[in-house]
Amino acid sequence: MSTTIRLYAEDQLTGDKQIELSSDQAHYINNVMRLNVGDEVLLFNALDGEWAATIQESKKKRCVLQVGSKTRDTEKMPDLWLCFAPIKKQRLDFIIEKATELGVSCLQPVITRHTIVSKIRTDRLHAQAIEASEQCERLNIPDVKEAVSLTQLIKDWPENRRLFVLDERGGAEPIDQALRTHKDGPHAFLTGPEGGFEASELDLLRKLPFVTPISLGPRILRADTAALAAISCWQSVCGDWQKPLRNRFGEE
Amino acid sequence: MSTTIRLYAEDQLTGDKQIELSSDQAHYINNVMRLNVGDEVLLFNALDGEWAATIQESKKKRCVLQVGSKTRDTEKMPDLWLCFAPIKKQRLDFIIEKATELGVSCLQPVITRHTIVSKIRTDRLHAQAIEASEQCERLNIPDVKEAVSLTQLIKDWPENRRLFVLDERGGAEPIDQALRTHKDGPHAFLTGPEGGFEASELDLLRKLPFVTPISLGPRILRADTAALAAISCWQSVCGDWQKPLRNRFGEE
Repeated sequence: MSTTIRLYAEDQLTGDKQIELSSDQAHYINNVMRLNVGDEVLLFNALDGEWAATIQESKKKRCVLQVGSKTRDTEKMPDLWLCFAPIKKQRLDFIIEKATELGVSCLQPVITRHTIVSKIRTDRLHAQAIEASEQCERLNIPDVKEAVSLTQLIKDWPENRRLFVLDERGGAEPIDQALRTHKDGPHAFLTGPEGGFEASELDLLRKLPFVTPISLGPRILRADTAALAAISCWQSVCGDWQKPLRNRFGEE
Repeated sequence: MSTTIRLYAEDQLTGDKQIELSSDQAHYINNVMRLNVGDEVLLFNALDGEWAATIQESKKKRCVLQVGSKTRDTEKMPDLWLCFAPIKKQRLDFIIEKATELGVSCLQPVITRHTIVSKIRTDRLHAQAIEASEQCERLNIPDVKEAVSLTQLIKDWPENRRLFVLDERGGAEPIDQALRTHKDGPHAFLTGPEGGFEASELDLLRKLPFVTPISLGPRILRADTAALAAISCWQSVCGDWQKPLRNRFGEE
């Protein structure tokens, strides 16, 4: 992993500009990481790409940076939504972190009948998505939506986006086959809560023209494992895993 | 997930046999889950399959079960090894749990130059693998090996087993392509520590006839994410994800 600290910058980034960090970010830089005037960090956002910036001022809750030169251009990210029934905190945090690392563009919490988590702190999930993006070298932050009911999700669903539903019952297409059949996007996955979907929810989903039920093999997977496994398979077949890693050793 | 408690049984399982649980298992049944005489659990191992068993005696650190009828036959599991440089505890635990859920047959810790974890408690990893197997309805437990150096791993490597090495530098084949090229097994994955492999280690590995370097796309993934993503892709292409889930609703 890169050792230079990367921070998400809401402001526009251009050469020679002065950027003042938020007080949370300033605290992190000054007090947690203990950087000093003259040290370098990387600032990024989806529109401007990634830029090197040098610390000009570093005092208490204030940190001002001077933007230098651009280190990376904006990149087109794969278009994949993950719709997920919220689960217990530790596993939920894991979904946010891993889904961000694996390049998901939108995270949509969905309340289903068996969902036991009643209150979803969207702002907290958003903060985690930012942190995960900073650490995995993404240039954009996945869009974290407010939670909706399954009924509302279906009602508002954009019909051109294929929704792969992880269906634990028999008869669903193996994921590899489903991805190849429906290779052209845009796509989304829907994973259920710890207790799984209720049979009536799956019956309803199966009837929708934009839904493809999929199977992840003969073993039952936890919700968080299933989400991550599905996204990985998608990236491998439909996403940008055919592209080489940005080379870090100066080789072609 | 199944709600009946599943326990790994080292003893042979046959109908009408009396099984005494280990004191740890007895504590779990009696004191943590608070089951009583007459309650049912499921016992399993790779040789005998899975059997229903009823609690006959439940006192303090002693729990005796009467085996009833067989609920599942032994199943052939996919043959996939995960060789991994140990990382910090929480992420390591995650690898063990998820790799077990995803059907890996063998877990081999490997010490590389950048590995910072010096002491690996193989017994602890084994206990976690058992717990993960109990919870994800596996019938066998992945084999957890003692840690070896990378040099030793290479020296003892069975040449007929293809080793896919997650190579963070440019030039490695995308995973989907590599899996299809080398679809016939047996297979293994090797993932590096937090700091990645040293360039000389990757150079050495690339020269070996049984090694195929692979890429998981243009974003850098944490070691634990990469391991999980690779196993998922493997199961989807080479493993048993073409097989339907054992049906739980009595349907075909």
